[in-house]
Amino acid sequence: MNSRPDTRLRRLPERGLNDFASACAVIDAARICHAGIAVDGQPYVLPMACARDGRRLLMHGSIASRLVKQLGGGLPVCVTITHLDGLVLARSAFNSSMNYRSVMVFGTAVAITDAREKTLGLDILTDQLAPGRRAEIRASNRKELAATSLLALPIETFTVKVRTGPPEDLQSDLEADVWAGVIPFTQVSGTPVPAPDLVEGIEFPEYLARV
Amino acid sequence: MNSRPDTRLRRLPERGLNDFASACAVIDAARICHAGIAVDGQPYVLPMACARDGRRLLMHGSIASRLVKQLGGGLPVCVTITHLDGLVLARSAFNSSMNYRSVMVFGTAVAITDAREKTLGLDILTDQLAPGRRAEIRASNRKELAATSLLALPIETFTVKVRTGPPEDLQSDLEADVWAGVIPFTQVSGTPVPAPDLVEGIEFPEYLARV
Repeated sequence: MNSRPDTRLRRLPERGLNDFASACAVIDAARICHAGIAVDGQPYVLPMACARDGRRLLMHGSIASRLVKQLGGGLPVCVTITHLDGLVLARSAFNSSMNYRSVMVFGTAVAITDAREKTLGLDILTDQLAPGRRAEIRASNRKELAATSLLALPIETFTVKVRTGPPEDLQSDLEADVWAGVIPFTQVSGTPVPAPDLVEGIEFPEYLARV
Repeated sequence: MNSRPDTRLRRLPERGLNDFASACAVIDAARICHAGIAVDGQPYVLPMACARDGRRLLMHGSIASRLVKQLGGGLPVCVTITHLDGLVLARSAFNSSMNYRSVMVFGTAVAITDAREKTLGLDILTDQLAPGRRAEIRASNRKELAATSLLALPIETFTVKVRTGPPEDLQSDLEADVWAGVIPFTQVSGTPVPAPDLVEGIEFPEYLARV
């Protein structure tokens, strides 16, 4: 790599929390990430399932995808995770904003090819997405493992940005006769929809209520 | 641009709905996008506020951001919007998946610099994020407009991918004694948090209940 990504925070340093624990907090709350690579100068940004395995980010995609292959092929990547936490409504358009937690991880991803390591990685992914699920479902067989691609990106070079709290209005706007504040957003899970071919009598399991 | 992004759907063509209306449906439901550019081969993926203005995607960032400047500087970009709609729990790890709606838009973004055009664009952004808000808040002044950057990317070259519906298990897995189905996800807005400096007596307005 002949260019080191410039990850200095040039702006809003108060929104930067560039320690590993802050990055983990954002990553551990994620189900998907947006993985970017450039092929001949053309960027591609792919949504992928993700989970954290210690000091690396695991990303799951299809082995048949050319872009997923390229993501694991040694090119520099940038993987971004963003949680949108709220709309920050100030008295002016200019000072209106969003609350969010975001991490950008830079580096080079590798494709995990060893069957045992891949199985362990996919287990971690399943555990992050649906804790408890692994005890119920059958593991992937060799053919399935071969058809699954799993990438690992070290969580070493990264930036974290977080905005929280109320709007910050100009003093001169504070008396405006307009509501100001934050409308928080959350992602919630709704009523589970059983598969149409579900064996009769199988109830929705308790552990999935925590998804 | 010496390389045309290859946006052919090589895989899962059944998940591709590459018409403009399908792209709009995904874009119009979005509040943020992930914008990718490559600088000297290093990709950067930035979360940005977004909205659709007819046949172009508007993206809002800070004028002080070097990356936002580069996004509007004529480099090829890829902007991806993803809505995660549910966890698709099959009887096997391999066939488990996610329901989602996603669009990738490729092209070259321009920075909108004309004050009038910028005002109109920011209005569209406010209307998508908080319909009705514009009638209440003061517009940006010249100095604020100058400190705001707004990018426009034509919605011309894009791919849309959507997965909906139940898990698709192997016939041989169907009798497994395990719940299968979809846990849907929705992003909901929670109880509004008034700004600590809100003038007493100003109620949360009706129109914001639809955010």
